[in-house]
Amino acid sequence: MHDHPIIKTLPSHMTSLTPSILLPDSLKLAQNMFEELRLQGTDGIGITRLAYTEQENAALGIIARHARQMGLDTASDAAGNLVISLRGKDTSLPALACGSHMDSVPQGGNYDGAAGVIAGIIALASLHARGARPHRNLRVYALRGEESAAFGKPYLGSSALLGRLGSADLALRQHGSGRPLGECMRACGINTTAIADGRCLLDPHTLAGWIELHIEQGPVLDTCDIPLGVVSAIRGNFRYPSITCMGESGHSGSTPPALRHDPVLAAADLLSTMEKHWQAHLRNGEDLVMTSGCIGTDARTHAIAKIADTVSFSFEARSTSSGMLERFQSEFLAQCARISAQRGVRFQMGHKDTTPPVQMDPQWEARLCTIMKAQGVGFMQLPSGAGHDAAVFAAMGVPSAMIFVRNQNGSHNPREAMRMDDFISGCETLTRMLINFM
Amino acid sequence: MHDHPIIKTLPSHMTSLTPSILLPDSLKLAQNMFEELRLQGTDGIGITRLAYTEQENAALGIIARHARQMGLDTASDAAGNLVISLRGKDTSLPALACGSHMDSVPQGGNYDGAAGVIAGIIALASLHARGARPHRNLRVYALRGEESAAFGKPYLGSSALLGRLGSADLALRQHGSGRPLGECMRACGINTTAIADGRCLLDPHTLAGWIELHIEQGPVLDTCDIPLGVVSAIRGNFRYPSITCMGESGHSGSTPPALRHDPVLAAADLLSTMEKHWQAHLRNGEDLVMTSGCIGTDARTHAIAKIADTVSFSFEARSTSSGMLERFQSEFLAQCARISAQRGVRFQMGHKDTTPPVQMDPQWEARLCTIMKAQGVGFMQLPSGAGHDAAVFAAMGVPSAMIFVRNQNGSHNPREAMRMDDFISGCETLTRMLINFM
Repeated sequence: MHDHPIIKTLPSHMTSLTPSILLPDSLKLAQNMFEELRLQGTDGIGITRLAYTEQENAALGIIARHARQMGLDTASDAAGNLVISLRGKDTSLPALACGSHMDSVPQGGNYDGAAGVIAGIIALASLHARGARPHRNLRVYALRGEESAAFGKPYLGSSALLGRLGSADLALRQHGSGRPLGECMRACGINTTAIADGRCLLDPHTLAGWIELHIEQGPVLDTCDIPLGVVSAIRGNFRYPSITCMGESGHSGSTPPALRHDPVLAAADLLSTMEKHWQAHLRNGEDLVMTSGCIGTDARTHAIAKIADTVSFSFEARSTSSGMLERFQSEFLAQCARISAQRGVRFQMGHKDTTPPVQMDPQWEARLCTIMKAQGVGFMQLPSGAGHDAAVFAAMGVPSAMIFVRNQNGSHNPREAMRMDDFISGCETLTRMLINFM
Repeated sequence: MHDHPIIKTLPSHMTSLTPSILLPDSLKLAQNMFEELRLQGTDGIGITRLAYTEQENAALGIIARHARQMGLDTASDAAGNLVISLRGKDTSLPALACGSHMDSVPQGGNYDGAAGVIAGIIALASLHARGARPHRNLRVYALRGEESAAFGKPYLGSSALLGRLGSADLALRQHGSGRPLGECMRACGINTTAIADGRCLLDPHTLAGWIELHIEQGPVLDTCDIPLGVVSAIRGNFRYPSITCMGESGHSGSTPPALRHDPVLAAADLLSTMEKHWQAHLRNGEDLVMTSGCIGTDARTHAIAKIADTVSFSFEARSTSSGMLERFQSEFLAQCARISAQRGVRFQMGHKDTTPPVQMDPQWEARLCTIMKAQGVGFMQLPSGAGHDAAVFAAMGVPSAMIFVRNQNGSHNPREAMRMDDFISGCETLTRMLINFM
């Protein structure tokens, strides 16, 4: 794990060094909420709670009811997200917010998103039950529409709240039905006029910070047998969804070596060379991953006994460092140029997407580490390869931090799993973090 | 062209050093035959004369009529191929045979196959017109079913004649209609009983030799600006139609480098490494080509933001040396094993096909070179990357040789082309070769 230095690890079986500050029946409360969400969201195979649908509404309803039963206040924000709050002594102070999203991908898991919302409720309910009266307001956001699966764009709920959507986004079509996002939002009771104008519905200065607990989605913590993670940054990326390498078709037997312009061997050269660059950057301690998830010759024209005329492939690199991304992209383009010249092929690069990396707040990150250490739970610092709502809050200048809980079997699939004792450890950390800053 | 040493090249514009022995109107006779075949075989885009169909029958009929008009005898052999002959003084001597095939691929060209048949007719007609009385019988075979496009297997006409088919082959289904080969043969008036038994319908000892003129199909002669070629060997091959490399799917952003088992990068590594082996063999003067014509991740499950679970690809190598093919295949399997171990992926090799290389008769090959030199035509020796009926005759012990005529725009497509002056040069060589051995 050379790219994920373990800052601090304690045996996961080690119990807390200090007594828990959670409600004694936190585990049971959390299980009840997860179970009710599961029953409501099941599609027969996994969990389906798509953005701005009846299922998402129902899930928010379940969460709101449980929160009220624990004595917390609930309300909708101007973007239709659910806000659960515990009133502070000085309501003029910026509020401290935690939470995550309630929607899922189709046939996804029950924890991706919901775990962060339920953790927030457990935290606020525990503080409320102890009679703790915070200085500032504490909030749990149960956000809508984080997954890009529904409309092709992620972070809809947090982006709408923070004025990062516009009329073009509201025209995005729902996969399957083709209904525009704006129409789906209005069907959920959301007034979309201000959202269409890109108006900020929540002044980011009214937030003291954003703390998001989420399952890791990747396999790092589980592989290292470490229950919790502290996120250092959310990786940005550059991404070419479909590059086409154009060579020259020819008989596989009768075209001599010197007359070949084989696009498959050109693509293999490119990917192998970029992998060597990648490995070199890793040896230098850089954070970087590269993936070519889709590749294919044209099934209508390819043949075993024929040099392909073209091959198309995707190429994506992610890093927590924007400098690294820029450098890797330069190397990529330089290799395309070299290979074009050497092999007599041509690369049609097509569309390119770029997402900048987002750093978590270093002080909040350090505080999370201190708390986990005191708590006696095994943890490590690691970057997040997947995107999260925390990136939207951080980009708006809100000090942000993320707690990862190890998960099994990956995410975005029905086999997604999470151990309840790991989750409760994460709730403990979150609650202590709130106390620290409240 | 390091893999195709040019043995002897004369400028292509240089006229014959010795007077032509062809009929003065050979060009016109050939053009008439090609034109009539073209009109009969056109499909609106290219030429379609599929094996054991009415179109193939009609083409054989056109050829037979022209041959008889030139005073040659025509007959069908026991496998339904057309045999055009010029009777020799001693009919007990083994006959000298030339020719090629009459069928085409769908939407193919007019010269692939037919050129060799028409060249044979021009040769025999020229000898007949000069009153030359050969010692031995001279024959032109207009063979059926050389292309694998119709039934998935090549060389059907020559294989049926030489007892190399069997009942399993007669059950092969015609692409499109699904009709069995045996049924299609019988519809062409062929008695399939002996063919089903694999009986040799023509004793190879009754043939003194086989000389096949054919368009090159590859681009070597055209690129080198050389009109004729002398084939040294027909490349054999080993071929894996569909290898699947099985890795492990994962999120493209959140799966760290050390936990990746990316089958796309594994396949790129394999192909790039094999290309380096290939280049090394070429530097050592070996004859070798390698092609991965088909590659693809699974379109049902792949995604840009996901490490692919599998990638499938074809792999084929061809060489005139069976030793080289064995060595290259060992290297290929060794690389699969290395990559499996290093990357934690697995290769499912699937079905493998092997075709041994076939050497042309060295003495006949040398004779062709001598004739072309005397003729004053530019030529070179080169291997054939594509298969030909000559391989079947050679495998049955018949001394075999091939004359290549350069073609433009490749073969198996409607743009296939051949210059008539190159073709007439080839006819001249063929005629002189027949005189040499008749």
